[in-house]
Amino acid sequence: MDKRREADGFAFREQLSTMARERVGLSEIGEIVSLAAKYRALSFGAGEPSADMFPKDDIREAMARAFRENDDIWGYHPDEFGLMELREWIASRMRQDGMAPDWMRPENVIITNGGGEAMNLIAEALVDPGSMVLVESPTYTESLLTFRKQGAVCLPVPSDDDGLIPEELARVASSRRARFLYTIPNFQNPSGRTTPLDRRVKILEILRDHGMALVEDDPYHYLSYDGEPPASYLKLAGDDKRVIHCNSFSKTITPGLRCGWAVIPPAMSEAISCLRICAGLGRPLVIQRGIINYLGGMDFSKRVSVLRDEYRKRRGAMLEAAARYLAPLGIKTNRPGGGFFIWAEAMPGVNTREFAHFAVREEHIAIIPGTAFYLKGEKDGFSSFRLSYSKVPTDSVDEGMKRLARAFQTFA
Amino acid sequence: MDKRREADGFAFREQLSTMARERVGLSEIGEIVSLAAKYRALSFGAGEPSADMFPKDDIREAMARAFRENDDIWGYHPDEFGLMELREWIASRMRQDGMAPDWMRPENVIITNGGGEAMNLIAEALVDPGSMVLVESPTYTESLLTFRKQGAVCLPVPSDDDGLIPEELARVASSRRARFLYTIPNFQNPSGRTTPLDRRVKILEILRDHGMALVEDDPYHYLSYDGEPPASYLKLAGDDKRVIHCNSFSKTITPGLRCGWAVIPPAMSEAISCLRICAGLGRPLVIQRGIINYLGGMDFSKRVSVLRDEYRKRRGAMLEAAARYLAPLGIKTNRPGGGFFIWAEAMPGVNTREFAHFAVREEHIAIIPGTAFYLKGEKDGFSSFRLSYSKVPTDSVDEGMKRLARAFQTFA
Repeated sequence: MDKRREADGFAFREQLSTMARERVGLSEIGEIVSLAAKYRALSFGAGEPSADMFPKDDIREAMARAFRENDDIWGYHPDEFGLMELREWIASRMRQDGMAPDWMRPENVIITNGGGEAMNLIAEALVDPGSMVLVESPTYTESLLTFRKQGAVCLPVPSDDDGLIPEELARVASSRRARFLYTIPNFQNPSGRTTPLDRRVKILEILRDHGMALVEDDPYHYLSYDGEPPASYLKLAGDDKRVIHCNSFSKTITPGLRCGWAVIPPAMSEAISCLRICAGLGRPLVIQRGIINYLGGMDFSKRVSVLRDEYRKRRGAMLEAAARYLAPLGIKTNRPGGGFFIWAEAMPGVNTREFAHFAVREEHIAIIPGTAFYLKGEKDGFSSFRLSYSKVPTDSVDEGMKRLARAFQTFA
Repeated sequence: MDKRREADGFAFREQLSTMARERVGLSEIGEIVSLAAKYRALSFGAGEPSADMFPKDDIREAMARAFRENDDIWGYHPDEFGLMELREWIASRMRQDGMAPDWMRPENVIITNGGGEAMNLIAEALVDPGSMVLVESPTYTESLLTFRKQGAVCLPVPSDDDGLIPEELARVASSRRARFLYTIPNFQNPSGRTTPLDRRVKILEILRDHGMALVEDDPYHYLSYDGEPPASYLKLAGDDKRVIHCNSFSKTITPGLRCGWAVIPPAMSEAISCLRICAGLGRPLVIQRGIINYLGGMDFSKRVSVLRDEYRKRRGAMLEAAARYLAPLGIKTNRPGGGFFIWAEAMPGVNTREFAHFAVREEHIAIIPGTAFYLKGEKDGFSSFRLSYSKVPTDSVDEGMKRLARAFQTFA
């Protein structure tokens, strides 16, 4: 018995479920973020909203009002789906912004601990061990982890600069019977890509042909910098009701309140309710009251345009710096229409996973290597990487990009 | 295709996972609670703390301070287990109260969305489809639901007035290889029973002999009315580390903040961390800040004694009323040493499930039938029922008990 096992006492490691032992693990992103902290690096890594954009004073006041005025925040809440007033706001706003189909009611909205809890509930409700799930490639690491936790076999569907490629979807969907397609249609994490309307229509047709559902993850929806995003899949599917839509206040308000939501089709409602009871009943009501107090007393469209103006500047600054320092090295970057991320492609043959460790250690600049966003066994991802501009002030992006370029030169 | 299916659109009902389709369902408790609301009944049903015991002003101030003073509440929190200061308070308090073994550190504590989320993470980490889980019989319905969601086969271990019967545990543990034993050792939900020290020692020995872990669910710990509860299993197991301990602030502070915790043995820590990431990362930090601000500025022992004094009175009032109105009908009740619940046994042959519906409809008094707390197929539970005194003011318990007695007379 080795030392660690002795110190462990009871052999929980041997007792772990297949779920805990084989299907989950710590992500590459966490590893790089830890290294960035260790080396006090400049970070193009973290996919997070910028702290200086949080409406702290307004939230503080809105929460104080919840404590003063709302006496329903103390006990168990009878509705596991959450506070009806907040769900009404969400339904009404989604309708106003062309995201909601006619059938959608506040009753179909569930409030979640960020978008992540929504994905977890959906995975529990739809994935059996061995179920196939189609994901755009590259895709968001934590969603992959959640689907696999439930035992999903994730199959990649290639994408290009315009997001998911319908012909590739048709090919993969024909080869295996999958439960659903998972996609981030707007300003995708990690690629920054947006799927245009004509592709969305085609993709829904393909899904209909194959009897497949779609999980639409849309946390960057409001962060569009060059005009509004195309109609949501939820809206486009209409009465067909094959789309589950997930969203979040993490990017428009603040992630610390851990408040997201999902639009659950009526046929899944009871299942999600039972799964939510198992996950610890409802989420804290005072947070939901605070958020609706905040939203009720402000102009959301105006806030969105403030966010767009600031993040648009940051995108511009990083694109400029990339053109200046990376392009001469043969590194290509795309131009995202919104969100937080630029997708970059280094010279073929560069292993960006090794490079990312080198760069943070030697030049104190953090990026996330493309491999973090691909499935094991996929050939892609070695030379691609993600640049995040959301938390990078425009006056430090130049210094960061210089470091990155220097790291590339010495690494090669 | 019937009307509901047509309105459903996409056939999500057919697409549901085994987990969602076969393993979860709405509980009998929810059904009775809904009926109680419908008939505006007096309720001996709800197992909840009393709203007049919530420290509203103090929490309001403590949360306001969190918003004023703590700037770490806005972004993503780097530690999925939660706020270290709160985990330090918990570890220190558990040590002071004889609940913590020597090895326990704040790092072993995870903050959860009530005790329910803790149970869900533990079930995910330890249960495979087909895994055996031993539960005391009767037991807490929602924990059963959570274990079964993960595919557990729950096996009942009979209990008597002193809780779990060690000889019965030895018998069941010998017949099947189980992952763990689940128990609520103090003032159990639903039975109000407490397992004495000598039984706890024997039970741990049996678990050691069979290489089994123990999940100790202890939310009523501080609500003891006749002296302190026996040493916790967590403490008794010591360096053996086979116990996972779950607890909650729902009964000592307020359930609306959705704040509980679990003590996770080191060998399970990484698995729980990964599962927490899948479940939507950390829980809202401002809530955790608010709670530690509250706890740091008050005398917890004094608060506990205020709670004990009030709930002790309510226990006394209900026991008295039961002696006056139920005993003459041949209905036996036990005398719990703490918590919220009295366990009652009606005349053999009375189906309390049918009776509970009759009583709420005809006499507007709600109780929870024993069947809610047994596994399907168990013979027990038909004539037993749970009485909850926690939310019943002493001046309305007499009226409620009169109604209950009247219902029994007309039902029989």
